[in-house]
Amino acid sequence: MQCEVVAVGTELLLGSNLDTNSAWIAERLAESGIDSHFHTSVGDNHERIVAVLRLALSRSDAVIVTGGLGPTQDDITRAAIAEVMGVAMFRDDEQVQRITNVFAARKRVMSANNLLQADRPVGSTVIAQSQGTAPGLMCPVGDKTIYAVPGVPSEMKEMITGVIVPDLVRRSGVTAVIRTRTLRTWGVAESTVAEMIAPRIDALDVSGAATISFLAKGIEGIHVRVSAKASSVMEADEIIAGEEQALREILGDLVFGVDDETMESAVASLLVRNSYTFGVAESLTGGLISQRLTANAGASAWFRGGIVSYSSDVKHLVLRVPDGPVVSEVAARAMAVNARTVLASDVGLSVTGVAGPDTQDGQPVGTVFVGIALPDGSSDVVQLHLHGDRQRIREHTCINALNELRKRLAL
Amino acid sequence: MQCEVVAVGTELLLGSNLDTNSAWIAERLAESGIDSHFHTSVGDNHERIVAVLRLALSRSDAVIVTGGLGPTQDDITRAAIAEVMGVAMFRDDEQVQRITNVFAARKRVMSANNLLQADRPVGSTVIAQSQGTAPGLMCPVGDKTIYAVPGVPSEMKEMITGVIVPDLVRRSGVTAVIRTRTLRTWGVAESTVAEMIAPRIDALDVSGAATISFLAKGIEGIHVRVSAKASSVMEADEIIAGEEQALREILGDLVFGVDDETMESAVASLLVRNSYTFGVAESLTGGLISQRLTANAGASAWFRGGIVSYSSDVKHLVLRVPDGPVVSEVAARAMAVNARTVLASDVGLSVTGVAGPDTQDGQPVGTVFVGIALPDGSSDVVQLHLHGDRQRIREHTCINALNELRKRLAL
Repeated sequence: MQCEVVAVGTELLLGSNLDTNSAWIAERLAESGIDSHFHTSVGDNHERIVAVLRLALSRSDAVIVTGGLGPTQDDITRAAIAEVMGVAMFRDDEQVQRITNVFAARKRVMSANNLLQADRPVGSTVIAQSQGTAPGLMCPVGDKTIYAVPGVPSEMKEMITGVIVPDLVRRSGVTAVIRTRTLRTWGVAESTVAEMIAPRIDALDVSGAATISFLAKGIEGIHVRVSAKASSVMEADEIIAGEEQALREILGDLVFGVDDETMESAVASLLVRNSYTFGVAESLTGGLISQRLTANAGASAWFRGGIVSYSSDVKHLVLRVPDGPVVSEVAARAMAVNARTVLASDVGLSVTGVAGPDTQDGQPVGTVFVGIALPDGSSDVVQLHLHGDRQRIREHTCINALNELRKRLAL
Repeated sequence: MQCEVVAVGTELLLGSNLDTNSAWIAERLAESGIDSHFHTSVGDNHERIVAVLRLALSRSDAVIVTGGLGPTQDDITRAAIAEVMGVAMFRDDEQVQRITNVFAARKRVMSANNLLQADRPVGSTVIAQSQGTAPGLMCPVGDKTIYAVPGVPSEMKEMITGVIVPDLVRRSGVTAVIRTRTLRTWGVAESTVAEMIAPRIDALDVSGAATISFLAKGIEGIHVRVSAKASSVMEADEIIAGEEQALREILGDLVFGVDDETMESAVASLLVRNSYTFGVAESLTGGLISQRLTANAGASAWFRGGIVSYSSDVKHLVLRVPDGPVVSEVAARAMAVNARTVLASDVGLSVTGVAGPDTQDGQPVGTVFVGIALPDGSSDVVQLHLHGDRQRIREHTCINALNELRKRLAL
C-alpha cells in the first residue's frame, strides 16, 4: 500500500507558511506500515491541482490531500477532485444543516460562502469532524482513493487518525497489527547507541519478531524505535515489552523517556514522585530552562521559580555567589545551593557558562558548569564542553542540565 | 521564469525531519519575482529522484534540488542528475583537494567516502561554499538548469542567495530590479491593517509604482510588504522609501520593526539607545521573556536578569509583592517596580496572569496584567484579555508585554 501526500495552498509555494501537515501525516503512515514515496505542494490553481492528483494516482494506491477545503474562492480542492473523478458536484443538505448549526452554536453570522463547504463530488463520502465546518472527503477513483482533509492541523489530525489511517490499513489487506514504542535517549552519539544495540538488532534480524530503527532528533535526543507486527494488539505489545526490557538493560540510564515523554516531563515526574519542589538559577540559558519546565500545565505543583542571573552583579546580589570568576565550579555550586534558599525549594539547579560569541572569564565558548543541590544538602557540579553556535550551546546546556538532574533524582 | 523545488531525503517522507528548506527557498524566489508552482519531496531512491527531476524540467524552466549531496551511500542526488543530463560522472581533482584541506584544517581524519562529494556530472559547474565539504552544482539540461545544493540549511542558503537566485534573475532576462521592504506590525488584526492601508493600495493600483501585500505571521505579527520594480536599485529603493513613509504615517506605532527586526531586537535597540539596563519579573510566561531577550548576542550590555516568580511564595519572598491576589494590577505593579530594585536595573517589566488550563484568584484563563516601571520612577499597568490555549497565551503575553514596553521607550 502506497499513499502519497499532496498539500494545497499558494502560501506554501510563497514560503510564507511552512507545511508541517505533510510530515505529521507521513509519520502516521510510516507507523502503520504504509509507504509514502512522494510529497507534493501545489498552489490554489485548478489545472495544477488536477494534474498533481492524476500523477499521484498514477503511481500510488491512495492520495491524502490537505488544504483548500475552506469557504473562500481560493478553496478549490473539492472541484479539482470532482474533475479527477469525472463527476459533478452537489450540495449535501446534511452538511448544510451541520455548518448552519456550527455557526448558530457559536452565535456567529454565516455568510453564504460558508455553504460552499457543503458542496462535494457525487460518489464521495463525508469524513465527519468535531471541530470546524469543512467536512473531509473520501473520493473513490477506480480502485484507488483520494482522501481530502482540511489544512487546519487539529481538524486534519482528527480525520487522519480516526478514519483515514484505519481505512488505509484495512484496504492494504494487512490483518497484522503493528505497534511501536520509542525509547528516548540522551548522552551519547547515534553511532554509540547503534554500537551498543547492534547485538539486539542482529538477534531480531534472525527472529523477525520486531525491528529496531534509530532517529537522531537533535535536541530531543536519539530515538530508538521498536516496531512489532503480530496478529493481535496483545501479542504485539508483549513482543515490544520484551524488547524494551532488553534494550533498557543495555542502555541503562541513557533512556530518559518513552514515546512522547520529553526530558522536562521526565524530570517533572521524578520531582512529583518524590514530592520535591524545584528552583533554578540560570545564566547563559537566560530563562530557557524555566520556560521549558513551565510550558506544560501542572508545573505549579513543584516549580517554585527561577533566577535568571544573566549579569555577574545579579549573581552576586541575588544569589550571593562569592567574588571571583562566574564561569566556574564555585559559582555554579553557589548558584544551585542558594537558588534552593532564595526560592525556598527542595532541589536547586544552576547553569553558568559561555554561550558565545565571545569568551568570558578566560573560558572558551562552550564551557558550561551545571550545579545541582539536593534536598539532603549535598551538591554537585558537572562541567560540559559544548560546541556549535550560541543557540545550540544554550539548548544543549538546558537539556544536559535537566539530564544530570534526572539521573540524580532517579537514583 | 518558473523554478520548482525538490527536496531529497527519505527522512522527509518518514516525517522524522521537517522540510524547512523548501519554504525558505520559495520565499527567496518569490521576492525575486520567480514563480514556483510545485514543491516535491522524494526519498533516497535513484529511479524516483530521476523521475521527479524529469517531471520538474518538463513543466518548469529550472529546478533547485536540496539534499543528497553528502558522503554516504544514501547521497545519490549527483548520480540521479547525471542520468537526467545523460552524462557520466567524473572526480573533480580541485574538489578532492578542497575537501582534503577542509578535513586537515579541522584536524579530522577523512574517510574515503568523503571524496564521493568530489564526483560530479560532466558538464556541471561547481557552486563554491565556505562552510562544509559538499559543493553545489549547476547542471544544464538543454536550455534548462538543475541547481543542486546541500540539505544543510546554512550551506544551502549561502548558495541560493549568492549564486542561484542571481543566476535565475539573469536568465529570466528581467533587467528590472525588484526590492522589497517589510514593515512588521503588532497590536491589531490583519483585517484592521488591511482597512487602514486600503487607500494606499488603491493609489498604488493606479500608479503601478509598487505593490503591497500582507502576511499574518502569528506571533511575529502582521507583515506589510512593499515591493518596487524599477530599472535600478537606487530608483527602486526611492520608491520603497516613499511608500514606507506613507505607510508609517498611517500605521504609526503599530510598526515595531522592519525586515528581519523582531520585537526583541526593537526593544533591545531602544534600551541601548537610551543606555538603560533591564530586568524582568515573570509569572505565567515562566522565563519566556528572559529567554527571548537573551537569545541574541549582545544582551549582556543591557539585560541584567530576571525573576521567574512562578509560585505566589516567590512573588512575596523575592519580589515583595504585598499579600493579596497575585493576578492583579497591584501585584503586576509591585513586580515591575521591585524587579528594578532587586535586579538593580533602570527599567522593570512584569507579567502575571492565568495561562490555564485552570482559573486562578477567581480570574478567567487569559487574564494577564503587564507592569512597566521606568527610570523616572513612574509605573504603569496594562490588562490583557487573551484567548487560546496555554502556549498561545504565554506567547502572546510575551509579545504584548514587550510591545507595551517598546511603545513607552519610543516616546
